[in-house]
Amino acid sequence: MALDMGMHDEAADADPLSASDQGNLARLERVGAGTAITGEIFGLVGKSQFFTEFSREDISALAGYMEVYRAQPGELIIREADAGDFMVLIVEGEIDILKKSHRGEQQHMTSAGPGMTLGEMSMIDGEPRFATCMASQPTTFAVLTRDNMAKIILDHPSLGSKILVKMVTMLSLRLRQTSARLLRYMEEPR
Amino acid sequence: MALDMGMHDEAADADPLSASDQGNLARLERVGAGTAITGEIFGLVGKSQFFTEFSREDISALAGYMEVYRAQPGELIIREADAGDFMVLIVEGEIDILKKSHRGEQQHMTSAGPGMTLGEMSMIDGEPRFATCMASQPTTFAVLTRDNMAKIILDHPSLGSKILVKMVTMLSLRLRQTSARLLRYMEEPR
Repeated sequence: MALDMGMHDEAADADPLSASDQGNLARLERVGAGTAITGEIFGLVGKSQFFTEFSREDISALAGYMEVYRAQPGELIIREADAGDFMVLIVEGEIDILKKSHRGEQQHMTSAGPGMTLGEMSMIDGEPRFATCMASQPTTFAVLTRDNMAKIILDHPSLGSKILVKMVTMLSLRLRQTSARLLRYMEEPR
Repeated sequence: MALDMGMHDEAADADPLSASDQGNLARLERVGAGTAITGEIFGLVGKSQFFTEFSREDISALAGYMEVYRAQPGELIIREADAGDFMVLIVEGEIDILKKSHRGEQQHMTSAGPGMTLGEMSMIDGEPRFATCMASQPTTFAVLTRDNMAKIILDHPSLGSKILVKMVTMLSLRLRQTSARLLRYMEEPR
């Protein structure tokens, strides 16, 4: 299910942690509400592209829609091909992004650290998870579900737009980087 | 300059066609205001991923912020490495996406047709144009500038969010496709 603007009112009371790939989260240590780590999120502001142009008020409001989890090295956060309905903001630690090759081997694509986001593609477009995300260090991260993103857009439209603009910015950056890598392969003599 | 939420009030009266790579547009045939082709845009609704979930009112409002241009085969719409501050919605025709290789040759990356969008990365993140876009057939397209996108977000927040969600969706799709192509290259024996 993709993010379907303005049709989420009746889902507003649904348990945000009952659906689809949130089963992976259910196996991890739940630290608490995002508001419990508003301080840590403020601490990320300087390091994170995600939060440039966010005011203190924006971050406090956003934290109110997030839940915080902790994963130990080797623990799975997102599994490739699962249905996906949340994104992750890394607060501390490191997460490996892995994808199965045609031969079934896990290929390491890249790693992500504090201030980076993961999983926003499936969170917005409702397509299956493209890659697996696994903690490579003790990692603390905040989770934003699709239902809560829809609530932010309805309840705080200006904050919602800021978050969406950031997602476009971060996806653009990744698409430029990935396209540049692809072009280098395409140019190499075979 | 990236899309800077809430700081565009003083720019609201600026000529939307005076800045950066809009010089390329100035050389093309200007058909008129987007409202002149609202009918054609409605006609795209069925074909275009971009407009699923947009109401008639949404499309009418969006058209009011767009300008329509026409390009003949071989005419340049966006030039790689230029500063960029608009996106393009293709109404009719076809546009080739080209990128310079390290050896300076134009490599054909892909083509785009009616209902597809181009240029939203630079429009939002303010980075230089990643690739060149050139009409390969007689092509009609609607242009949305960064300033007008900022106005939509301020004046019609719900429409602004819908457009941004669509951008995230389309960028996610392209990132999945590009990553999958990259992985196939990475897997091949060299």
